[in-house]
Amino acid sequence: MDECGPYPRRTTLPWVVGLTQVLGLTSVVLTGVWMGRYRGGFAWDGSAKEFNLHPLCMVLGLVFLQGDAILVYRVFRNEPKRNVKLLHGVIHLFALIFTIVGIVAVFDFHRASKIPDMYSLHSWCGIATVVLFCIQWVLGLMFFLFPVASAWLRAMYLPLHVFCGIVLLVMAIGSCLLGITEKLLFSIMSTYSQFTAEGVLANCLGAVLVCFGVLMIFIITNEDYRRPHHPEEEALSVHFKTLTEGASSPTP
Amino acid sequence: MDECGPYPRRTTLPWVVGLTQVLGLTSVVLTGVWMGRYRGGFAWDGSAKEFNLHPLCMVLGLVFLQGDAILVYRVFRNEPKRNVKLLHGVIHLFALIFTIVGIVAVFDFHRASKIPDMYSLHSWCGIATVVLFCIQWVLGLMFFLFPVASAWLRAMYLPLHVFCGIVLLVMAIGSCLLGITEKLLFSIMSTYSQFTAEGVLANCLGAVLVCFGVLMIFIITNEDYRRPHHPEEEALSVHFKTLTEGASSPTP
Repeated sequence: MDECGPYPRRTTLPWVVGLTQVLGLTSVVLTGVWMGRYRGGFAWDGSAKEFNLHPLCMVLGLVFLQGDAILVYRVFRNEPKRNVKLLHGVIHLFALIFTIVGIVAVFDFHRASKIPDMYSLHSWCGIATVVLFCIQWVLGLMFFLFPVASAWLRAMYLPLHVFCGIVLLVMAIGSCLLGITEKLLFSIMSTYSQFTAEGVLANCLGAVLVCFGVLMIFIITNEDYRRPHHPEEEALSVHFKTLTEGASSPTP
Repeated sequence: MDECGPYPRRTTLPWVVGLTQVLGLTSVVLTGVWMGRYRGGFAWDGSAKEFNLHPLCMVLGLVFLQGDAILVYRVFRNEPKRNVKLLHGVIHLFALIFTIVGIVAVFDFHRASKIPDMYSLHSWCGIATVVLFCIQWVLGLMFFLFPVASAWLRAMYLPLHVFCGIVLLVMAIGSCLLGITEKLLFSIMSTYSQFTAEGVLANCLGAVLVCFGVLMIFIITNEDYRRPHHPEEEALSVHFKTLTEGASSPTP
């Protein structure tokens, strides 16, 4: 494996990224079809139709958009880093908005239907994911987009930020799978074992989400797809820190 | 982060490995208590008691033992590589045995109770994990423990083997979480939302499995915990390949 050149195996990246987009969009469409065709569609009235927004928003925000926000570092790996960071933060902002709408929808439905909150494993995993996602977003904003932390602190935090990002994506997909299982057993428990169309559709949605996750982790962890090292960016970054922090060195 | 020395941050490894063992054993004990205390115990008679062996075997084999098999490369990172490989393969063999017992138990229970197989998302994810686990075990044996493949092929396959190992561990944990949700909704759907002891216990099992998975991935992906490079092992390996393959070069 040649890791010396800046663009080894470059040609495969567009294909695998394209495949993630096909899988990600398929998962969103399948969720929409499941909720729209089999569960009565969408509304904002405290009914089951409001609940239906929950899976759609979570798959769109916490899985597809969160995944795409991570992918920008691979897709735009030759663009100026500051622009890529901004795009990463903006896509995460949209992911956060959809996530909040999805969370509000389910709590609203529970309140209207007098269903207790937070008793299931899905809700435990889901809320842990959302809380960590919010913390990760705020810390990411503070550390990398606004010059709050020193270069040393940013360098220390970066591996943790990347690790938590991957964990969060996996946890989001895991929570979605739990949600699919929960919804199916609440809705069609008596017919699920007869391979009804709704059950198979929802299972396929789960399988697509798993494939999306595996491919995403493959892209993120593959050394060949990483952003090449740009010494001039590092120099600029140090210069920027010197301007904002005075003459102090970026390293302790 | 100093990556030049062979043993940076060495002191934290025993602690995090110890924590994985506490979490892993806790998950096995919680599964045993759940099935033993709340679901009637264990038997091999086609009844629900035979089914109870399924979660216990899968958590023990496919999660705890699979995780430990991966960990040996970090725990025994200064032992001769061949011994560590052997241990890795042997622990995986035990994981495979428990997995097969667990799979047989659930299919046997389904047959006796006339419950259809393979209709749920849990079963789809679970069987995909088990099939990939078996393929990974056989390929690992052929590539790394017995000198079937050339050094070049082994070097090509190694990153894929490591990646698939991590994916398999995550898929195993995800399948367990789906199984927990399924079992709870089949058994205590009417009381689950009242935070009954069984529901909370099973949720805690799920949370422990998630923590085990996150910590495992942290250890596996942390550069500081990796096995240090031993040039003499590489030389020995090349020498061994030369002996078994004649004078052909290990690289094309």
